[in-house]
Amino acid sequence: MRGAVLYAPGDVRVEERDDPRIIEPTDAILQLSAACVCGSDLWPYRGVEPVQGPSPMGHEYVGIVQEVGSQVTSITPGQLVVGSFWASDNTCELCQAGYQSACIHREPMGALGAQAELLRVPLADGTLVATPDLPADDLIPSLLAASDVLGTGWFAAVAAEAGPGRTVAVVGDGAVGLLAVLAASQLGAERIIAMSRHEPRQQLAREYGATDIVTERGGAGVARIKELTGGLGAHSVIEGVGTQESMLQAIGATRPGGHVGFVGVAHGVELPVEGLFWSLVHLHGGPAPVRRFLPELIDRIWTRQIDPGKVFDLSLPLEEAAEGYRAMDERRAIKALLHP
Amino acid sequence: MRGAVLYAPGDVRVEERDDPRIIEPTDAILQLSAACVCGSDLWPYRGVEPVQGPSPMGHEYVGIVQEVGSQVTSITPGQLVVGSFWASDNTCELCQAGYQSACIHREPMGALGAQAELLRVPLADGTLVATPDLPADDLIPSLLAASDVLGTGWFAAVAAEAGPGRTVAVVGDGAVGLLAVLAASQLGAERIIAMSRHEPRQQLAREYGATDIVTERGGAGVARIKELTGGLGAHSVIEGVGTQESMLQAIGATRPGGHVGFVGVAHGVELPVEGLFWSLVHLHGGPAPVRRFLPELIDRIWTRQIDPGKVFDLSLPLEEAAEGYRAMDERRAIKALLHP
Repeated sequence: MRGAVLYAPGDVRVEERDDPRIIEPTDAILQLSAACVCGSDLWPYRGVEPVQGPSPMGHEYVGIVQEVGSQVTSITPGQLVVGSFWASDNTCELCQAGYQSACIHREPMGALGAQAELLRVPLADGTLVATPDLPADDLIPSLLAASDVLGTGWFAAVAAEAGPGRTVAVVGDGAVGLLAVLAASQLGAERIIAMSRHEPRQQLAREYGATDIVTERGGAGVARIKELTGGLGAHSVIEGVGTQESMLQAIGATRPGGHVGFVGVAHGVELPVEGLFWSLVHLHGGPAPVRRFLPELIDRIWTRQIDPGKVFDLSLPLEEAAEGYRAMDERRAIKALLHP
Repeated sequence: MRGAVLYAPGDVRVEERDDPRIIEPTDAILQLSAACVCGSDLWPYRGVEPVQGPSPMGHEYVGIVQEVGSQVTSITPGQLVVGSFWASDNTCELCQAGYQSACIHREPMGALGAQAELLRVPLADGTLVATPDLPADDLIPSLLAASDVLGTGWFAAVAAEAGPGRTVAVVGDGAVGLLAVLAASQLGAERIIAMSRHEPRQQLAREYGATDIVTERGGAGVARIKELTGGLGAHSVIEGVGTQESMLQAIGATRPGGHVGFVGVAHGVELPVEGLFWSLVHLHGGPAPVRRFLPELIDRIWTRQIDPGKVFDLSLPLEEAAEGYRAMDERRAIKALLHP
């Protein structure tokens, strides 16, 4: 099969890879309907995370079940399924508590390479959720978004306790930030402030429910959020970047007693706890337990209540994956969809 | 009047200070029934926080109302009252949300010096809570504890979501840590692990409801908590120290999706956010909004459901305040009560 492999920073190649096959009796093999490039794929692409030899890339996926292992009972060949970027058994104590991304048997999907034609999914019963029927083609991008960016944005909004009567600020206008706006809106937030200085992203944020746009960053961004919230700060702030500046901006923009949901993969961020202490905010985040939300997200997509697929503003054949990386790296695209 | 003043690290003197008087019409003057030394008073005493000239000390208090300003309506002379270490109006949006320690009109009581015979309390209506009647003498230490260490331990337990079915670990065996054990027990926690290597403190922890004692610290302490919790970590961890080690120990001992309540005043702690990200814990803490809990705490003390006053294992005349500081600094005493 064909699949994307990162050889070194900036060097993504689509090449022939071995077809995946059932290894464990709990595995499934999917024929992928669509794949995509994640903001977190840019960390190794930019050399911020080390690249240890040629690495298959991609961890977001939607596809048709081609084959299942002998112990798989809830998923059958021919179904269209969505899964998270962590395979999880969905039965252990941590999964049952809603933290499937910390499942005691979890396996990272990134190592298996979902920017490809075929994909092996471990722990298929626990990991995969089937759609009610085969979907219309135009739903595929939204279902793909549920696999990570929508699920991550949703988790961030839940972690930040976005909901009725609350003012929510969103730091980061990537796909996760934009879908966190959508999530906050769906969760009933009263007011949603998107922090973005990019016109097309501001527009999508508004479509997704943002009521205000703030273009300032850092200390000036914090001051502007306070100005908009009677000097107190937002009740809920979502952080979807993962830098020192974005984290301090998120905490600074939150009122005492408020909630920060942070899902930007942190890189080299050191948080002075004295500031956190005096801020009196709640902090929760990490790798999103997307599996917790998948049934609900699929339902909202299936019934066309939400259209998260709009974050894919670039669509390419899988063979042109390298251009997808480049476009996202240069911020020419929010998120690139790849057709296998 | 007589009052304790810190001149320099290690140099506490009890000397003649001006009697406080009503300055604002919302003030009250208290004749203090008891005062005490706080673990946080040791930071400047040890020179970890700078001492800027002679500073009146003390921020925990219980006393009889001697005089009130013209706008005070809910407190009357002759009543015995308890207040928090932050004066607060108890009416602003942040107070109403339960964060009186972030009140938009808050004033730190520490600057006024509660290790003294008399004390001015600003915002008396919002800050002070009266007991149902004049209390028996043996309730005074417990009521004094409510002013800070009990309220702070209680907030930590609430922030850590201690409750039925939850395993709670407590890092720190000072007065706050011990009273967090009491709070977790009162909140219905199933299992309470106190981390302490001091025999008398272990014993008080057990009296307050600890079911297990762990003497290991740092990485070994984390490993021991995991061993006691099926490899997962505690649901709730309370941090009551404020050092880098105690903070990392608390986060490390918490299971994914669990809650850390941190109330140790952080000094020079830098938290690597990557570790926090992957831990998937909830983090909440800061200066406790003690006022939120005062009515409930006073009720539990008044009806003798709890006896937080046991943390005072040293009782001295106010004149001997310096010995109280020394005894706590050398860990010869958990907490020193001072009789004005």
